[in-house]
Amino acid sequence: MVKQERAARTRRSLIGAAAEVFAEVGFVPASLGAISRRAGVSNGALHFHFANKSMLAEAVEAEAAERVRCVVEAVGARQGDPLQAVVDATHELMGALLRDVVVRGGFHLAGDIARRAESPLRQEWQRWVEDGLRRAARGGALAPGVAWDDAARLIVAATVGLEVLGGADGSWLSRQNVTRLWDLLLPRLAGRPYAGVLVSSGSLPPATHPHTG
Amino acid sequence: MVKQERAARTRRSLIGAAAEVFAEVGFVPASLGAISRRAGVSNGALHFHFANKSMLAEAVEAEAAERVRCVVEAVGARQGDPLQAVVDATHELMGALLRDVVVRGGFHLAGDIARRAESPLRQEWQRWVEDGLRRAARGGALAPGVAWDDAARLIVAATVGLEVLGGADGSWLSRQNVTRLWDLLLPRLAGRPYAGVLVSSGSLPPATHPHTG
Repeated sequence: MVKQERAARTRRSLIGAAAEVFAEVGFVPASLGAISRRAGVSNGALHFHFANKSMLAEAVEAEAAERVRCVVEAVGARQGDPLQAVVDATHELMGALLRDVVVRGGFHLAGDIARRAESPLRQEWQRWVEDGLRRAARGGALAPGVAWDDAARLIVAATVGLEVLGGADGSWLSRQNVTRLWDLLLPRLAGRPYAGVLVSSGSLPPATHPHTG
Repeated sequence: MVKQERAARTRRSLIGAAAEVFAEVGFVPASLGAISRRAGVSNGALHFHFANKSMLAEAVEAEAAERVRCVVEAVGARQGDPLQAVVDATHELMGALLRDVVVRGGFHLAGDIARRAESPLRQEWQRWVEDGLRRAARGGALAPGVAWDDAARLIVAATVGLEVLGGADGSWLSRQNVTRLWDLLLPRLAGRPYAGVLVSSGSLPPATHPHTG
């Protein structure tokens, strides 16, 4: 393995280990020693890649944001209906929170009082939901009297709630639980011609997940 | 002022100051020195009342749970319809999170990874919402096909989301925002004879708030 590859692999190990430790104990109590031990690298190697704990947190947040962006953009590419795309993306996001420790660590930091001002994750998710609902409204896909921004706020509140509750009890993030939530929301949010067509359980086959752990 | 009164007042100041500091920086980084300074008492006085930081967190959690219980029971006493009582209680809870630093600190600890296993607040709120929805279903007040436990999970997820998002941006907790959420949820959850009667903005006049700060 050439030197550059080894460095990239060490960096990935450190980001994964940091995400785990941040999700387990929070940002302030997390120790760099625990992170380098978990990654199986020396303290010196950690400091070669990251000058301090904040830079490690930034790397976890950036990597989590990138993974969420990939998941959400893949949904948008496969699903042309904006409301169904929001449904599908919530399933993908909750699945990623269950399976991918970097996404879990990134969202943990987004809720951590020491990091939340820095973290882009919840804001990006909110903007993406708003964008989907705005496009659904423009396409006439929302029920009469339903404002896109109210619908977006409800969806953001419910999904942030699932994310937070799922941190202590993973069953909140299950496909079944997310489907039941959409079974309640979709008949209210979708206009009549759409209501029977949209699929609460998501329209996509279970995706392949390159990042598990 | 007799000695006992003074001790009770010091204890209340310490709980209020601790709630503020926990909500501002989190449990682990909170220092007992910062809490005693904020309460305007000596370190010795703090240690007379609380042997350590965990006991102070327990006192904040217990006091917050007690205040939430009071709010919720007052709603139950004034409002006989169980679904309207859930609507009213969400308004009261969000109002308490905006105005009462002990409730805010208590819910912050409920989401703090160092304390959440200990904290009774979110579980109590969930049980209370479930109880209300179960009674609404028994009374035939839910729409056909709406399961009370699914409805309860959606309401718990959305309200925990509001609580968490409101920690960074208080506008999520506003009466207007909570009303819009119920404008979307009530027509879907309530059976036809009830849907037109229930009030999204809450059926109670703004309550008096003994605990502000």
